[in-house]
Amino acid sequence: MAGLRSGVKSWGTYVVTDATLSRGRSHVEVAREAIGGGADVVQLREKDAPSRALYEIAEKIRRLTRDAGVPFIVNDRVDIALAAGADGVHVGQDDLPASEARRLIGPDRVLGVSAASLEEALAAERDGADYIGFGPVFEARGTKPDSGPPRGLELLADVCERCAVAVIAIGGINHGNVDRVIAAGAAGVAVISGVVGARDIAAAVRDLKERIRQARGSTP
Amino acid sequence: MAGLRSGVKSWGTYVVTDATLSRGRSHVEVAREAIGGGADVVQLREKDAPSRALYEIAEKIRRLTRDAGVPFIVNDRVDIALAAGADGVHVGQDDLPASEARRLIGPDRVLGVSAASLEEALAAERDGADYIGFGPVFEARGTKPDSGPPRGLELLADVCERCAVAVIAIGGINHGNVDRVIAAGAAGVAVISGVVGARDIAAAVRDLKERIRQARGSTP
Repeated sequence: MAGLRSGVKSWGTYVVTDATLSRGRSHVEVAREAIGGGADVVQLREKDAPSRALYEIAEKIRRLTRDAGVPFIVNDRVDIALAAGADGVHVGQDDLPASEARRLIGPDRVLGVSAASLEEALAAERDGADYIGFGPVFEARGTKPDSGPPRGLELLADVCERCAVAVIAIGGINHGNVDRVIAAGAAGVAVISGVVGARDIAAAVRDLKERIRQARGSTP
Repeated sequence: MAGLRSGVKSWGTYVVTDATLSRGRSHVEVAREAIGGGADVVQLREKDAPSRALYEIAEKIRRLTRDAGVPFIVNDRVDIALAAGADGVHVGQDDLPASEARRLIGPDRVLGVSAASLEEALAAERDGADYIGFGPVFEARGTKPDSGPPRGLELLADVCERCAVAVIAIGGINHGNVDRVIAAGAAGVAVISGVVGARDIAAAVRDLKERIRQARGSTP
């Protein structure tokens, strides 16, 4: 998957698996359905599993995503990303420093970094991020109790303007507000509860993709 | 630290930090005291901290151990070991497979693998382990509720005889039984509660070292 890092700006629909919000479906099932609906990238996020179990899940999602030609990102765990042959890693402010993550994954894999302020976003860019996961933009449901108040569309627009790398917006984004997020300048949106919690994940992804397509078309 | 892997057989006193058993002392404090008492190697074991916090602890212990010329091993987290520049990593049966861990750490760092049976020990050796952490030999106090019944000195002796790599015994080992563990053929002993839970960690390490020295001298 050559030039993967430069393709990040086309990642409109970024699906984050989360086993706690997925109506009992496993990470692998969520990934499969998200791919079926046309997800542009899949991130495995699992903070509680032992390393071996996480590795085995990552290997399964690696096979699914490779077969579908969809990039695969692992949250937090650089070792799992490397062991499973993922395309990249996403680190938050409580994970390994972005610069260390970049050093460990090398120059070819994608590095995403969570930011909740302009300062964090600019620092992440300096430290080697290929994209910024910015948010929470809106009130998010049940995923990250420690992520603080919504940052809003105005700050999102500011971050998109000031950062050269892609900005993926996250936090409370759904088919009802995604057009405003894209209009603010986000390259794409990361969705967890809005998609993973849907009864029909593939349909939710398709719907979101279509709305992003429309929003991009109408963004000046 | 060239030839580190070949030096594993001299690791008599292998101290595993554990913040839950250490009377409120931090990993860094435990490591400092263990080094002061003459520990031959220090392992950081922390299963609950976020990656950033774990990395910062690992960096501090890396500085202490480097200054003292003591090898430093990180439990489970290959990414943290690499980021902090540790000398090696120790994986259990619920962590990354040994072969993957070896691939990620490269040929120069030390790989330790936990085993609770002869089969696991021989598999670990095949997969690139430099030492086997075998146990629990005796009833262990409060560290690993899922580690099963004591495996005993007879099986330990069998594992030591059948494995070419060093065997570090673990589980309920203290100054009262370490002589029998060394007599069974163990290269060294990993201690957690017996040392980390002591009021004077450095003194407990010194005592253990002395008993290992004596036991080695009297082992036929």
